[in-house]
Amino acid sequence: MADSKPLLSLDGDPMAAEALLQDVFGIVVDEVVRKGTSASEKVCEWKEPEELKQLLDLELRGEGESQQQILERCRAVIHYSVKTCHPRFFNQLFSGLDPHALAGRIITESLNTSQYTYEIAPVFVLMEEEVLRKLRALVGWSSGDGVFCPGRRPFFGLFKGGSISNMYAVNLARYQRYPDCKQRGLRALPPLALFTSKECHYSIKKGAAFLGLGTDSVRMVKADERGKMIPEDLERQISLAEAEGAVPFLVSATSGTTVLGAFDPLEAIADVCQRHGLWLHVDAAWGGSVLLSQTHRHLLNGIQRADSVAWNPHKLLSAGLQCSALLLRDTSNLLKRCHGSQASYLFQQDKFYDVALDTGDKVVQCGRRVDCLKLWLMWKAQGGQGLERRVDQAFALARYLVEELKKREGFELVMEPEFVNVCFWFVPPSLRGKKGSPDYSERLAKLQREARLPQVAPVLKERMVRKGSMMIGYQPHGSCGNFFRMVVANPALTRADMDFLLNELERLGQDL
Amino acid sequence: MADSKPLLSLDGDPMAAEALLQDVFGIVVDEVVRKGTSASEKVCEWKEPEELKQLLDLELRGEGESQQQILERCRAVIHYSVKTCHPRFFNQLFSGLDPHALAGRIITESLNTSQYTYEIAPVFVLMEEEVLRKLRALVGWSSGDGVFCPGRRPFFGLFKGGSISNMYAVNLARYQRYPDCKQRGLRALPPLALFTSKECHYSIKKGAAFLGLGTDSVRMVKADERGKMIPEDLERQISLAEAEGAVPFLVSATSGTTVLGAFDPLEAIADVCQRHGLWLHVDAAWGGSVLLSQTHRHLLNGIQRADSVAWNPHKLLSAGLQCSALLLRDTSNLLKRCHGSQASYLFQQDKFYDVALDTGDKVVQCGRRVDCLKLWLMWKAQGGQGLERRVDQAFALARYLVEELKKREGFELVMEPEFVNVCFWFVPPSLRGKKGSPDYSERLAKLQREARLPQVAPVLKERMVRKGSMMIGYQPHGSCGNFFRMVVANPALTRADMDFLLNELERLGQDL
Repeated sequence: MADSKPLLSLDGDPMAAEALLQDVFGIVVDEVVRKGTSASEKVCEWKEPEELKQLLDLELRGEGESQQQILERCRAVIHYSVKTCHPRFFNQLFSGLDPHALAGRIITESLNTSQYTYEIAPVFVLMEEEVLRKLRALVGWSSGDGVFCPGRRPFFGLFKGGSISNMYAVNLARYQRYPDCKQRGLRALPPLALFTSKECHYSIKKGAAFLGLGTDSVRMVKADERGKMIPEDLERQISLAEAEGAVPFLVSATSGTTVLGAFDPLEAIADVCQRHGLWLHVDAAWGGSVLLSQTHRHLLNGIQRADSVAWNPHKLLSAGLQCSALLLRDTSNLLKRCHGSQASYLFQQDKFYDVALDTGDKVVQCGRRVDCLKLWLMWKAQGGQGLERRVDQAFALARYLVEELKKREGFELVMEPEFVNVCFWFVPPSLRGKKGSPDYSERLAKLQREARLPQVAPVLKERMVRKGSMMIGYQPHGSCGNFFRMVVANPALTRADMDFLLNELERLGQDL
Repeated sequence: MADSKPLLSLDGDPMAAEALLQDVFGIVVDEVVRKGTSASEKVCEWKEPEELKQLLDLELRGEGESQQQILERCRAVIHYSVKTCHPRFFNQLFSGLDPHALAGRIITESLNTSQYTYEIAPVFVLMEEEVLRKLRALVGWSSGDGVFCPGRRPFFGLFKGGSISNMYAVNLARYQRYPDCKQRGLRALPPLALFTSKECHYSIKKGAAFLGLGTDSVRMVKADERGKMIPEDLERQISLAEAEGAVPFLVSATSGTTVLGAFDPLEAIADVCQRHGLWLHVDAAWGGSVLLSQTHRHLLNGIQRADSVAWNPHKLLSAGLQCSALLLRDTSNLLKRCHGSQASYLFQQDKFYDVALDTGDKVVQCGRRVDCLKLWLMWKAQGGQGLERRVDQAFALARYLVEELKKREGFELVMEPEFVNVCFWFVPPSLRGKKGSPDYSERLAKLQREARLPQVAPVLKERMVRKGSMMIGYQPHGSCGNFFRMVVANPALTRADMDFLLNELERLGQDL
């Protein structure tokens, strides 16, 4: 096979490297930037795993391949991948393609450096400082600390997994109270207790297990029917934990839960934390970006009273995976004391610049990807005002969707949303009653109980994915069987896309 | 200011997005691919932090900027960034620009998905499986498990920070022995002890603190003068820990230490682990890629007896940050049991495909970046044979450097290297004795004691960085004062670059 002649490695041949990269970039523009964002193309190209394996020819062999083959592989990888930038991709808490953010990511990848020292990342050490300062200012802090973390929770479902930011917060809180912990470990400490709402406990539990606290240390606080933590129950749980001999040390509140998009009442929770001297962490991974909106930031009132905030601009702001900030109110260098090696004699104090700029010791995982440029560049291009408009537009479109949904027979809201998560059931024709008739909600409850309604979503999901027309997630939640969760996150969405969503569900489910 | 008129967000305008990205890509090709890899350009453009802040105008404002301004910002970011792809960048354990790997990274960024479920990352779920299978096969395992982790340790210096892969290994080992730990935490367990060599204990200690074990749980095993763990001392430390009432559970050996490039004797260490029933983790982040070389893989003999292996192809293989694999011999689904939520009722078991393909539950941080494509594409293009040649060439060039260095008066090896780390002192003219003369090594030791030799490296480092001619790291190590550590990692290096390194140090230090 002449065409499978091993390719020269291109090492030290910038002309050949450039030519290859030009070709690949052409493919990216064609297949992702152009087709991937076009509503007239498919959002995904479903294949069964075994078939896809054959199509991709994944095996890694001893022989290299020709440039032509490599370019075909690039095309195939893109072709069979889900287009998360597509205007009909509603499946996750991120969607869309921000060209400035993507530009920042491409520059980041080409520079391929680590956010460790000023020596090897002068631009990004200073840039991260400024971006974190700006995010802190939006929280309401004029000083503090912070770091970009590798954790994030972009996927759908109740089980969210602990983000690294949240784990850092828990680790910092326990270190602040018991600095001994770092050296002597948890066996030297009393049993600890941390608190989070029922809506969020799986995420926090995963982190608690990793940190050696054990999942039992996580106490569940009740949430109301809208998914918001009940401060009075938090108070109760704290007393209960203390009565059982545990030492409460942290409350993790959530601004924007994954499924319902609920915002915990931060002021009331901060009051409880203050009374008991507990660290208040706010997981605002999803909802943090609302702080950019003058109109909607009241949803996070009280966040300035937190000790730590996790905020992922890769979600609502479309900065691109990953962009996950942990912000701290602390000004005592807690981050460095807690995660640093404190083996100061090992640091090169004889460097010719201020070694305080070497931020690598702040984090556990040490060398870090550069995650600030994509957000910085996007912000420079659009300004805070442009980003604010984007947030406001997402709220407005979610509102439009809710109103349209209410007008239609086949759709039923799980609840009135306060964020851009719109949770609803599709009720197929054969199950429909007359909306507004006296027995309507009774009828709906019966369909739920008999599990006939929850069976609808998986069928529709399979149909839309096989067709490639759109992607939207579903899940059960609490006592509610499977429902769809629409996320209005893609900044390119219009009312037409909302209409499409409803019409397409009608089309897909007309025979059910 | 007409030119600072806020830019339209480009949302929903693929033509404008495409035009911007074309322009940015042109800048990347110009400034990084072409100039950044050219020996006739500077490797860095040193500025004092305050001056650089002014030059970059980092502040994030309310107003957006024009496209022209944004493109200038892209140029400035690249201009003032260190070119890690430059043939004179010897500062870290990674260097160079592999165009196929960069192509993979650009595609990854443009597709912007999470390696969580088959639903949203069908190509990458299958691809990761194949890449991990291949890496495991090189370790010597025909079955097993694994995952790509966000951790990595690309920076220079003795203090390395715990990679996430290493922390995962420790967490898995303790869970395997005490599954209760996940729920009940470390307070329910006896005091645990883990072992690593003196060369590596800072990395592991950082992880032990985070995992709640405390740094005291890390027992230091002596290393010989070449930096290799002494198995007899490991045996001694295990007995000592047991005598003190601790339960040994894990040994972390290293294949390729950061400074000296030392390989621990894995067969002998595996014997000790087997005798005591301990989990053997091999941190082969740096040295793992040697497994590709038939000629040199004997350095890792015994690695197939490990329980877990950490391997970062972003280092010697230049796959690009980050690419960090944790490989496991386990076939009992330990990864999922340990890190998963075990809240099986939360998983959507009614999906229309095999949910075993949804790998997100394997990891603590949940949603994960796609880290497999860059390595896969590079491997496809070059074949295992191409990558093997690259590893062999790095060894050969390191050998060439050593021989050249021995010929010169002003250079003194710290030790004969066995890997591609070449550690040496530059002895400036005023301090030189006659090499080979009877009192030569005595004289060198005296210069060390008086700290006159260790003062040389920081001065030369400052000079080379200000000049932009090259970057090479230095540090003290054990009883040795500051010395240079040359890393032969950039696949584009030639003998001329080795000669340059030596000549440039002579030039920079001629007046010392």
